[in-house]
Amino acid sequence: MSPADTAAVAEANRRFYEALQSRDFETMERCWSHEPEVSCVHPGWHRLDGWDEVARSWQAIFKNSRPWTVAFEDERVFLAGTIAVVLCAEKIESVGGGEPARMEATNIFRRRGPAWEMVHHHASPSPETETEEEISVN
Amino acid sequence: MSPADTAAVAEANRRFYEALQSRDFETMERCWSHEPEVSCVHPGWHRLDGWDEVARSWQAIFKNSRPWTVAFEDERVFLAGTIAVVLCAEKIESVGGGEPARMEATNIFRRRGPAWEMVHHHASPSPETETEEEISVN
Repeated sequence: MSPADTAAVAEANRRFYEALQSRDFETMERCWSHEPEVSCVHPGWHRLDGWDEVARSWQAIFKNSRPWTVAFEDERVFLAGTIAVVLCAEKIESVGGGEPARMEATNIFRRRGPAWEMVHHHASPSPETETEEEISVN
Repeated sequence: MSPADTAAVAEANRRFYEALQSRDFETMERCWSHEPEVSCVHPGWHRLDGWDEVARSWQAIFKNSRPWTVAFEDERVFLAGTIAVVLCAEKIESVGGGEPARMEATNIFRRRGPAWEMVHHHASPSPETETEEEISVN
Protein backbone atom coordinates (compact mmCIF):
# COMPACT_ATOMS: atom_id res chain seq x y z
CA MET A 1 0.00 0.00 0.00
CA SER A 2 1.38 3.38 -0.97
CA PRO A 3 0.92 6.54 1.10
CA ALA A 4 -0.99 7.95 -1.91
CA ASP A 5 -3.48 5.07 -1.78
CA THR A 6 -3.98 5.53 1.95
CA ALA A 7 -4.54 9.25 1.44
CA ALA A 8 -7.07 8.58 -1.35
CA VAL A 9 -9.02 6.17 0.87
CA ALA A 10 -8.98 8.60 3.80
CA GLU A 11 -10.25 11.29 1.42
CA ALA A 12 -13.11 9.01 0.26
CA ASN A 13 -14.03 8.42 3.90
CA ARG A 14 -13.92 12.15 4.62
CA ARG A 15 -16.20 12.83 1.66
CA PHE A 16 -18.70 10.27 2.97
CA TYR A 17 -18.99 12.18 6.26
CA GLU A 18 -19.19 15.47 4.40
CA ALA A 19 -22.12 13.98 2.46
CA LEU A 20 -23.73 12.78 5.70
CA GLN A 21 -23.46 16.26 7.16
CA SER A 22 -24.80 17.87 3.96
CA ARG A 23 -27.97 15.72 4.08
CA ASP A 24 -27.89 15.98 0.30
CA PHE A 25 -28.74 12.72 -1.45
CA GLU A 26 -26.83 13.51 -4.65
CA THR A 27 -23.66 14.18 -2.67
CA MET A 28 -24.14 10.89 -0.81
CA GLU A 29 -24.89 9.04 -4.06
CA ARG A 30 -21.50 10.08 -5.47
CA CYS A 31 -19.71 8.39 -2.53
CA TRP A 32 -21.17 4.93 -3.22
CA SER A 33 -20.81 2.14 -5.70
CA HIS A 34 -24.22 1.58 -7.31
CA GLU A 35 -23.83 -2.19 -7.57
CA PRO A 36 -26.29 -4.81 -6.26
CA GLU A 37 -23.66 -6.12 -3.82
CA VAL A 38 -23.36 -2.96 -1.72
CA SER A 39 -24.89 -3.07 1.74
CA CYS A 40 -25.49 -0.84 4.73
CA VAL A 41 -26.31 -1.24 8.42
CA HIS A 42 -27.54 2.05 9.91
CA PRO A 43 -27.53 2.25 13.73
CA GLY A 44 -30.27 -0.04 15.03
CA TRP A 45 -31.46 -1.07 11.55
CA HIS A 46 -31.50 -4.41 9.83
CA ARG A 47 -29.02 -4.72 6.97
CA LEU A 48 -29.96 -3.22 3.62
CA ASP A 49 -28.66 -5.02 0.52
CA GLY A 50 -28.13 -3.50 -2.93
CA TRP A 51 -27.77 0.11 -3.99
CA ASP A 52 -31.52 0.58 -4.55
CA GLU A 53 -32.36 -0.22 -0.91
CA VAL A 54 -29.37 1.73 0.38
CA ALA A 55 -30.30 4.75 -1.75
CA ARG A 56 -33.88 4.73 -0.44
CA SER A 57 -32.59 4.67 3.14
CA TRP A 58 -30.46 7.76 2.62
CA GLN A 59 -33.38 9.55 0.98
CA ALA A 60 -35.58 8.67 3.99
CA ILE A 61 -32.91 9.70 6.49
CA PHE A 62 -32.21 13.03 4.81
CA LYS A 63 -35.92 13.78 4.43
CA ASN A 64 -36.58 13.22 8.14
CA SER A 65 -33.42 14.63 9.69
CA ARG A 66 -32.73 18.07 11.00
CA PRO A 67 -29.42 19.92 10.46
CA TRP A 68 -26.53 18.21 12.19
CA THR A 69 -22.79 18.38 12.33
CA VAL A 70 -20.81 15.24 11.65
CA ALA A 71 -17.24 14.59 12.72
CA PHE A 72 -15.14 11.47 13.05
CA GLU A 73 -12.04 10.39 14.96
CA ASP A 74 -9.92 7.34 15.84
CA GLU A 75 -9.54 6.51 12.16
CA ARG A 76 -7.73 3.33 11.04
CA VAL A 77 -7.19 2.62 7.33
CA PHE A 78 -6.33 -0.81 5.90
CA LEU A 79 -5.71 -1.54 2.25
CA ALA A 80 -5.56 -4.87 0.49
CA GLY A 81 -5.38 -4.48 -3.27
CA THR A 82 -8.65 -3.04 -4.52
CA ILE A 83 -10.41 -3.16 -1.14
CA ALA A 84 -9.97 -0.71 1.73
CA VAL A 85 -11.43 -0.80 5.21
CA VAL A 86 -11.78 2.35 7.30
CA LEU A 87 -12.72 2.15 10.96
CA CYS A 88 -13.63 5.30 12.82
CA ALA A 89 -15.83 6.75 15.54
CA GLU A 90 -18.53 9.10 14.31
CA LYS A 91 -19.83 12.06 16.31
CA ILE A 92 -23.19 13.35 15.18
CA GLU A 93 -24.68 16.39 16.87
CA SER A 94 -27.97 18.12 16.13
CA VAL A 95 -27.49 21.79 15.37
CA GLY A 96 -29.05 23.77 18.19
CA GLY A 97 -28.99 21.26 20.98
CA GLY A 98 -28.92 17.73 22.25
CA GLU A 99 -26.14 15.41 23.24
CA PRO A 100 -23.86 14.29 20.42
CA ALA A 101 -24.36 10.69 19.36
CA ARG A 102 -21.21 8.58 19.10
CA MET A 103 -21.14 5.67 16.66
CA GLU A 104 -18.56 3.05 15.79
CA ALA A 105 -18.26 2.68 12.02
CA THR A 106 -16.86 0.05 9.67
CA ASN A 107 -16.63 1.49 6.16
CA ILE A 108 -15.49 -0.57 3.17
CA PHE A 109 -14.43 0.96 -0.13
CA ARG A 110 -13.57 -0.59 -3.47
CA ARG A 111 -11.29 0.98 -6.03
CA ARG A 112 -12.77 1.64 -9.44
CA GLY A 113 -10.28 3.41 -11.68
CA PRO A 114 -8.92 6.33 -9.67
CA ALA A 115 -11.97 6.43 -7.36
CA TRP A 116 -12.63 4.63 -4.07
CA GLU A 117 -16.35 3.87 -3.87
CA MET A 118 -18.17 2.87 -0.69
CA VAL A 119 -19.52 -0.68 -0.86
CA HIS A 120 -20.43 -1.21 2.81
CA HIS A 121 -21.22 0.98 5.80
CA HIS A 122 -21.97 -0.39 9.26
CA ALA A 123 -22.54 2.04 12.11
CA SER A 124 -23.73 1.32 15.64
CA PRO A 125 -24.10 3.30 18.87
CA SER A 126 -21.04 3.38 21.08
CA PRO A 127 -20.81 4.39 24.72
CA GLU A 128 -18.92 7.59 25.46
CA THR A 129 -16.98 5.98 28.29
CA GLU A 130 -15.36 2.62 28.77
CA THR A 131 -17.28 0.70 31.41
CA GLU A 132 -16.32 -2.94 31.10
CA GLU A 133 -18.61 -3.82 34.00
CA GLU A 134 -21.70 -2.83 32.05
CA ILE A 135 -20.99 -4.55 28.79
CA SER A 136 -22.50 -7.74 27.48
CA VAL A 137 -22.96 -9.31 24.08
CA ASN A 138 -26.66 -9.97 24.31
CA MET B 1 -12.80 -15.64 -6.62
CA SER B 2 -13.08 -19.41 -6.88
CA PRO B 3 -15.91 -21.45 -5.34
CA ALA B 4 -13.23 -23.12 -3.16
CA ASP B 5 -12.14 -19.73 -1.76
CA THR B 6 -15.73 -18.78 -1.03
CA ALA B 7 -16.31 -22.09 0.73
CA ALA B 8 -13.14 -21.64 2.81
CA VAL B 9 -14.24 -18.18 3.90
CA ALA B 10 -17.75 -19.40 4.75
CA GLU B 11 -16.16 -22.18 6.78
CA ALA B 12 -13.99 -19.67 8.69
CA ASN B 13 -17.11 -17.66 9.46
CA ARG B 14 -18.95 -20.79 10.61
CA ARG B 15 -16.05 -21.68 12.90
CA PHE B 16 -16.19 -18.21 14.45
CA TYR B 17 -19.83 -18.73 15.44
CA GLU B 18 -19.06 -22.22 16.69
CA ALA B 19 -16.37 -20.65 18.90
CA LEU B 20 -18.85 -18.01 20.11
CA GLN B 21 -21.32 -20.71 21.05
CA SER B 22 -18.61 -22.81 22.76
CA ARG B 23 -17.64 -19.87 25.05
CA ASP B 24 -14.16 -21.38 24.96
CA PHE B 25 -11.41 -18.79 24.64
CA GLU B 26 -8.89 -21.13 23.00
CA THR B 27 -11.38 -22.04 20.29
CA MET B 28 -12.06 -18.33 19.70
CA GLU B 29 -8.34 -17.55 19.72
CA ARG B 30 -7.77 -19.94 16.82
CA CYS B 31 -10.27 -18.02 14.64
CA TRP B 32 -8.38 -14.73 14.86
CA SER B 33 -5.23 -13.17 13.51
CA HIS B 34 -3.11 -12.15 16.50
CA GLU B 35 -1.76 -8.98 14.88
CA PRO B 36 -1.87 -5.48 16.37
CA GLU B 37 -4.12 -4.30 13.52
CA VAL B 38 -7.10 -6.51 14.35
CA SER B 39 -10.14 -4.81 15.83
CA CYS B 40 -13.55 -5.63 17.22
CA VAL B 41 -16.79 -3.81 17.99
CA HIS B 42 -19.03 -5.87 20.27
CA PRO B 43 -22.70 -4.78 20.44
CA GLY B 44 -22.86 -1.48 22.30
CA TRP B 45 -19.11 -1.35 22.98
CA HIS B 46 -16.47 1.10 21.84
CA ARG B 47 -14.01 -0.34 19.33
CA LEU B 48 -11.18 -2.51 20.63
CA ASP B 49 -7.88 -2.33 18.72
CA GLY B 50 -5.17 -4.98 18.63
CA TRP B 51 -5.32 -8.66 19.45
CA ASP B 52 -4.42 -8.13 23.14
CA GLU B 53 -7.50 -5.96 23.77
CA VAL B 54 -9.71 -8.18 21.63
CA ALA B 55 -8.50 -11.30 23.44
CA ARG B 56 -9.23 -9.76 26.85
CA SER B 57 -12.76 -8.90 25.71
CA TRP B 58 -13.51 -12.51 24.71
CA GLN B 59 -12.12 -13.74 28.02
CA ALA B 60 -14.39 -11.31 29.89
CA ILE B 61 -17.44 -12.20 27.78
CA PHE B 62 -16.95 -15.94 28.18
CA LYS B 63 -16.31 -15.59 31.90
CA ASN B 64 -19.56 -13.68 32.45
CA SER B 65 -21.87 -15.38 29.98
CA ARG B 66 -24.24 -18.26 30.50
CA PRO B 67 -24.75 -21.06 27.97
CA TRP B 68 -26.25 -19.84 24.71
CA THR B 69 -26.94 -21.09 21.24
CA VAL B 70 -25.59 -19.11 18.33
CA ALA B 71 -26.88 -19.27 14.76
CA PHE B 72 -26.52 -17.02 11.76
CA GLU B 73 -28.42 -16.37 8.54
CA ASP B 74 -28.61 -14.00 5.54
CA GLU B 75 -24.94 -14.57 4.80
CA ARG B 76 -23.14 -12.67 2.03
CA VAL B 77 -19.51 -13.42 1.20
CA PHE B 78 -17.24 -11.11 -0.80
CA LEU B 79 -13.65 -11.83 -1.71
CA ALA B 80 -10.99 -9.48 -3.00
CA GLY B 81 -7.59 -11.11 -3.15
CA THR B 82 -6.41 -11.83 0.38
CA ILE B 83 -9.33 -10.09 2.08
CA ALA B 84 -12.84 -11.46 2.55
CA VAL B 85 -15.91 -9.78 3.99
CA VAL B 86 -18.77 -11.80 5.42
CA LEU B 87 -22.04 -10.11 6.33
CA CYS B 88 -24.64 -12.03 8.30
CA ALA B 89 -27.35 -11.76 10.92
CA GLU B 90 -26.53 -13.46 14.23
CA LYS B 91 -29.15 -15.04 16.46
CA ILE B 92 -28.04 -15.53 20.04
CA GLU B 93 -30.36 -17.23 22.50
CA SER B 94 -29.75 -18.02 26.15
CA VAL B 95 -30.21 -21.69 26.89
CA GLY B 96 -33.27 -22.03 29.09
CA GLY B 97 -35.16 -18.89 28.25
CA GLY B 98 -35.30 -15.35 27.07
CA GLU B 99 -35.89 -13.80 23.71
CA PRO B 100 -33.18 -14.45 21.11
CA ALA B 101 -31.00 -11.42 20.38
CA ARG B 102 -30.55 -10.58 16.71
CA MET B 103 -27.37 -8.82 15.61
CA GLU B 104 -26.09 -7.55 12.29
CA ALA B 105 -22.46 -8.55 11.78
CA THR B 106 -19.64 -7.41 9.52
CA ASN B 107 -16.80 -9.93 9.68
CA ILE B 108 -13.50 -9.42 7.85
CA PHE B 109 -11.00 -12.21 7.27
CA ARG B 110 -7.48 -12.17 5.85
CA ARG B 111 -5.85 -15.13 4.15
CA ARG B 112 -2.61 -16.38 5.67
CA GLY B 113 -1.40 -19.46 3.84
CA PRO B 114 -4.36 -21.81 3.59
CA ALA B 115 -6.15 -20.22 6.57
CA TRP B 116 -8.63 -17.35 6.68
CA GLU B 117 -8.09 -15.47 9.95
CA MET B 118 -10.55 -12.96 11.40
CA VAL B 119 -9.13 -9.44 11.51
CA HIS B 120 -12.32 -7.47 12.27
CA HIS B 121 -15.69 -8.21 13.84
CA HIS B 122 -18.44 -5.61 14.18
CA ALA B 123 -21.80 -6.67 15.61
CA SER B 124 -24.74 -4.49 16.58
CA PRO B 125 -28.33 -5.07 17.68
CA SER B 126 -30.85 -5.34 14.87
CA PRO B 127 -34.64 -5.09 15.07
CA GLU B 128 -36.55 -8.27 14.36
CA THR B 129 -39.00 -6.47 12.09
CA GLU B 130 -38.64 -3.80 9.47
CA THR B 131 -40.32 -0.64 10.70
CA GLU B 132 -39.02 2.20 8.58
CA GLU B 133 -41.17 4.68 10.51
CA GLU B 134 -39.23 4.10 13.70
CA ILE B 135 -35.72 4.36 12.37
CA SER B 136 -33.31 7.22 12.72
CA VAL B 137 -29.56 7.60 12.57
CA ASN B 138 -29.08 9.37 15.85
